[in-house]
Amino acid sequence: MIRPSGRAADELRQIRITRNYTKHAEGSVLVEFGETKVICTASVESGVPRFLKGQGQGWLTAEYGMLPRATGSRNQREASRGKQGGRTLEIQRLIGRSLRAALDMGKLGENTIYIDCDVIQADGGTRTASITGAMVALLDALKLLKKRGALKGEPLKQMVAAVSVGIFQGVPVLDLDYPEDSAAETDLNVVMTSAGGFIEIQGTAEGAPFQPEELTAMLELARQGLQQLFELQQAALQDAV
Amino acid sequence: MIRPSGRAADELRQIRITRNYTKHAEGSVLVEFGETKVICTASVESGVPRFLKGQGQGWLTAEYGMLPRATGSRNQREASRGKQGGRTLEIQRLIGRSLRAALDMGKLGENTIYIDCDVIQADGGTRTASITGAMVALLDALKLLKKRGALKGEPLKQMVAAVSVGIFQGVPVLDLDYPEDSAAETDLNVVMTSAGGFIEIQGTAEGAPFQPEELTAMLELARQGLQQLFELQQAALQDAV
Amino acid sequence: MIRPSGRAADELRQIRITRNYTKHAEGSVLVEFGETKVICTASVESGVPRFLKGQGQGWLTAEYGMLPRATGSRNQREASRGKQGGRTLEIQRLIGRSLRAALDMGKLGENTIYIDCDVIQADGGTRTASITGAMVALLDALKLLKKRGALKGEPLKQMVAAVSVGIFQGVPVLDLDYPEDSAAETDLNVVMTSAGGFIEIQGTAEGAPFQPEELTAMLELARQGLQQLFELQQAALQDAV
Amino acid sequence: MIRPSGRAADELRQIRITRNYTKHAEGSVLVEFGETKVICTASVESGVPRFLKGQGQGWLTAEYGMLPRATGSRNQREASRGKQGGRTLEIQRLIGRSLRAALDMGKLGENTIYIDCDVIQADGGTRTASITGAMVALLDALKLLKKRGALKGEPLKQMVAAVSVGIFQGVPVLDLDYPEDSAAETDLNVVMTSAGGFIEIQGTAEGAPFQPEELTAMLELARQGLQQLFELQQAALQDAV
Amino acid sequence: MIRPSGRAADELRQIRITRNYTKHAEGSVLVEFGETKVICTASVESGVPRFLKGQGQGWLTAEYGMLPRATGSRNQREASRGKQGGRTLEIQRLIGRSLRAALDMGKLGENTIYIDCDVIQADGGTRTASITGAMVALLDALKLLKKRGALKGEPLKQMVAAVSVGIFQGVPVLDLDYPEDSAAETDLNVVMTSAGGFIEIQGTAEGAPFQPEELTAMLELARQGLQQLFELQQAALQDAV
Amino acid sequence: MIRPSGRAADELRQIRITRNYTKHAEGSVLVEFGETKVICTASVESGVPRFLKGQGQGWLTAEYGMLPRATGSRNQREASRGKQGGRTLEIQRLIGRSLRAALDMGKLGENTIYIDCDVIQADGGTRTASITGAMVALLDALKLLKKRGALKGEPLKQMVAAVSVGIFQGVPVLDLDYPEDSAAETDLNVVMTSAGGFIEIQGTAEGAPFQPEELTAMLELARQGLQQLFELQQAALQDAV
Repeated sequence: MIRPSGRAADELRQIRITRNYTKHAEGSVLVEFGETKVICTASVESGVPRFLKGQGQGWLTAEYGMLPRATGSRNQREASRGKQGGRTLEIQRLIGRSLRAALDMGKLGENTIYIDCDVIQADGGTRTASITGAMVALLDALKLLKKRGALKGEPLKQMVAAVSVGIFQGVPVLDLDYPEDSAAETDLNVVMTSAGGFIEIQGTAEGAPFQPEELTAMLELARQGLQQLFELQQAALQDAV
Repeated sequence: MIRPSGRAADELRQIRITRNYTKHAEGSVLVEFGETKVICTASVESGVPRFLKGQGQGWLTAEYGMLPRATGSRNQREASRGKQGGRTLEIQRLIGRSLRAALDMGKLGENTIYIDCDVIQADGGTRTASITGAMVALLDALKLLKKRGALKGEPLKQMVAAVSVGIFQGVPVLDLDYPEDSAAETDLNVVMTSAGGFIEIQGTAEGAPFQPEELTAMLELARQGLQQLFELQQAALQDAV
Repeated sequence: MIRPSGRAADELRQIRITRNYTKHAEGSVLVEFGETKVICTASVESGVPRFLKGQGQGWLTAEYGMLPRATGSRNQREASRGKQGGRTLEIQRLIGRSLRAALDMGKLGENTIYIDCDVIQADGGTRTASITGAMVALLDALKLLKKRGALKGEPLKQMVAAVSVGIFQGVPVLDLDYPEDSAAETDLNVVMTSAGGFIEIQGTAEGAPFQPEELTAMLELARQGLQQLFELQQAALQDAV
Repeated sequence: MIRPSGRAADELRQIRITRNYTKHAEGSVLVEFGETKVICTASVESGVPRFLKGQGQGWLTAEYGMLPRATGSRNQREASRGKQGGRTLEIQRLIGRSLRAALDMGKLGENTIYIDCDVIQADGGTRTASITGAMVALLDALKLLKKRGALKGEPLKQMVAAVSVGIFQGVPVLDLDYPEDSAAETDLNVVMTSAGGFIEIQGTAEGAPFQPEELTAMLELARQGLQQLFELQQAALQDAV
Repeated sequence: MIRPSGRAADELRQIRITRNYTKHAEGSVLVEFGETKVICTASVESGVPRFLKGQGQGWLTAEYGMLPRATGSRNQREASRGKQGGRTLEIQRLIGRSLRAALDMGKLGENTIYIDCDVIQADGGTRTASITGAMVALLDALKLLKKRGALKGEPLKQMVAAVSVGIFQGVPVLDLDYPEDSAAETDLNVVMTSAGGFIEIQGTAEGAPFQPEELTAMLELARQGLQQLFELQQAALQDAV
Repeated sequence: MIRPSGRAADELRQIRITRNYTKHAEGSVLVEFGETKVICTASVESGVPRFLKGQGQGWLTAEYGMLPRATGSRNQREASRGKQGGRTLEIQRLIGRSLRAALDMGKLGENTIYIDCDVIQADGGTRTASITGAMVALLDALKLLKKRGALKGEPLKQMVAAVSVGIFQGVPVLDLDYPEDSAAETDLNVVMTSAGGFIEIQGTAEGAPFQPEELTAMLELARQGLQQLFELQQAALQDAV
């Protein structure tokens, strides 16, 4: 089996994490997983949603979007359709849950962090790139809150990152791009902490069902890929910007 | 650890699958997983959505809803809010993917099957009950299509069922009810074929991340529970109705 | 004239009122008018809508829905269409007005009662079944409020029930089922109190106009049918549940 | 009992029906019931809605609206709220059913008539004024269709008009204005044909239930008022315009 | 060049401004620019939108609509489409900005004025007629606020009016009616103060681009037309009503 | 007067036009007017909207959006609000009209071009940057259509670009950035052809009305700025990419 990109089965695409990509947000990252490019911003507002008022804790919520021509053929703009599609809602709920798992809300103070992940170019794996990049934007926003003295302790519990794995032409592969994704028999998104615990796993058989041993192989690939992603996050965070 | 219901860790709730529950649909099932009760109907319409026209194959799509007072406190009716929430869309997409995996669309002819899963009483596990019950309603609809000579072969590829597993007070348990679900550290929904392949797995750490060995234990519990569910589906299908 | 069902012109369908049909709501009734089956729940929330705040009185509002396949052919789900249709709004406004007529809002305290009527199987007369069944669910909710000491007196002013009458093949008939309803020349819904006063009458000529003497005959039929319905409500309320 | 307006119990407000009120519509009427003023237009389009295609018959549908400041305090514009309210939908469905009763759709040819009733000033009875005025606009549109040779015979079966009656301070009164309407115990809208048959009756007890003999008295008042309205329609139609 | 209406190039249509056109609004004007007829109301509510709370100043906002058959062929009602179109929003934003320019919000007190411009018959120039007429309705509303002692000084800074100009068959013309508007090469809307300053200019080349000297000629025509409109506003305001 | 940016009154911000910014669209440009950054794509689809079918001509339409955190404080995502705001619709209508003025639709063949302008960072002048950048993306899309032989001649009639001018602290200035824009007395957007004709002018007095001589001065500034912009467009188009 040769991957369309020529990558080894356990090889990530070229990953780039560019901080301070836009200037207004408290955290702003351009994350690139190969040709997949997502702008991830973390915006801070003081106050929390009504259901949390007066509990002395913070909140994080996420939204996801795609520019209409981020993809090979143009998609109708969700703002003009008048609603977000099911895929969009599913992804933004996943991003929100994943990043909330990184935080101790009690330490965040009564602040809300809005994560916005906007795909400007799609080539597979937009949700996993979003989580991985937004984690870095989130840390930049936390730094700012720390400087302002708006926190009640260290809210960061653990780093979180995500990667996709799948079965392509019968072989488990890491970090699927679009040509693989659209032909894969199985697609599995894995969100992990840097300590190796699972936050989310979402696996779907696109064609034939997948077997327990395939699941095991895919999870191992994901674990290896995620270790590299955690290192890339750290490297990005050490850049002077 | 004692489960709130007193069940053993690997014990399903009482499952009931009642066919022909309402009279108009081609397939109509009331599925009960303990106190969780869902009406699942399969409706047949000739013709397919535009993106499939002229390809000589069929389609299946699913919708999910909850009566406003299916739950402990009343939820606003989605029809009056003017949109379906993210959770609803996520669940109905899961039901649709799961049941499409049961079918060979090329054998279905140019027919569309609408699956409607409406929760009349919720007590945890509504999505897994929906899939398990809708599978039976789907088979009744297929029988009718067969009688009408509207099929191009046997569209049923494999039986599909679903169950939830989780980590409750540190212990892997099968088929969580609401008191467990709302307190579980991890929640994992597993959709399988009767031959033991995975169609979907969706696991979420609600509190601490879960470990690979916990995942293995949960998947084994799910496998055992699903074997019983496949038997219960078969038993229901043998009932004269 | 022979009715499709073989019933006498002044004969109700078999009526069943099952209390405590689902477990979460303060009042929950399955009402059956023959093959028409509606789940009616009464949910209590403390507080009132803004326009009533601080006036020391309560409120009741109603919503109505149909499962997509409650009918002979599938209707699009209103939640996915993004709005409730005119028929739905018309019916839920009727249910709300009818049940508000049963109550003295000043005695209800600052509580809101939500009535939800969800048709799981339709065979004509869903709005009159809804009113008749919801009245019983409302009483169960009032009992609970009484127990909790949340009332400022007895809010029940009068029992309310509803039935349809019509002109079918030139003859006034009571409690139309779907085959009659879809062929009737005139359709009249009557909401009454147990003391014999009218709360609502809504009559529509589907074909030829109807004459004053036909109106008189239909109203008399309705009065007789409603007496039986009031007795059936009382019987249901005396059941130990 | 003295009516706020000083009118006798069986006295209509001053009624004015002005044809050709605006210039574009095939039929355009300003109808005034005292201070209630409604612009009624009848617009003709060739073709029919999908559910009627190819059946060789026509259709009529109606819409109703109120200018935001047609009333004593400003109502939010339905176009900016993003939906029509339940009251609006209820009224426009009533107008549509009432005017369809005037026509033999088989004679209309495959044409659709849109009735638009827009209240520019409200003082009670907007729905009955709308029906009465729109009937005249409809006739002007039919004349035009006749001239164009677009009809398949005479589609007019019968003239239709509407009036409200009610119980005000214990006394049945005709054609309620807003001060009466908002204080009435009972409000009854009656749509009739010029031959004396009922098309619609919709009665609501606002306070106490109403009794059969009150219903009889109100219907008799309505009958008398409607005779005058039919004469006023005829007079308007004889005006050279 | 002969204008379709036979008017001179610098000639306004017949302008009529009728105050107190409907009875409920604080200001209510029917403005007619030839066959274009718009009902303009100014409604006063105490209080201001959230973003202005506690700043001791007032606000003015505007909405615009067209009756479905104000035009030659029927337009779908925006309330039933579920949203206002881009043209509507653009026009109502223009009306709002234009009339806010007439006021010193600090003198208005914490009051909000809602301007509603509803076109009952369209023949070109509805937005400029709306602004010109609404200015008069606004003054009537201010008078009422003055009487009630609700103002904090004189809020009127300057009178505002609007007119359209364009290039029709190569010639600059004033106050385009629909036959001109639909064939014009350029369409320019000018909003001015009575002192001759510009509030808004919006020019669009419909066909060929327009040249600076054409712009100058159109602006001069507009200035002359607006002087007459300011006189007509004053005359209307002097009418005893 | 010193501009916040230190620029001369007639000085543009640094303009950058980067072609092929994303890979999927037929034309894709990142346009930067200083800190304002907009991704402009031109997408080609064969076929035209219904109102143009069978007329042998093409169409161009435009949409505009802003990432939620393109601005100093986060704006709610229009897709999640469920509708595009008035400002968005106004801008996208302007972009569409402006670029349609560049084309001879008869030469375009039955193709539709979708222009999408998505602001990733806003600092004033997003609509003028959008038009200027989208013009270049449009040319790249036309080149592709030409290669495919899908055109019926040369559709490009003229180059179009746009710039804003305004009165800031009493002085006419070119190409306002956000600090100027939010404090300007007057804001004027000018869309021109490279031959010097006006396509659109939209001027708004934010504070005091503006005078004819100020308008003249602003238009002259715009003309000078636009000449530079036309040169920058040409330079970008000559880049090998």
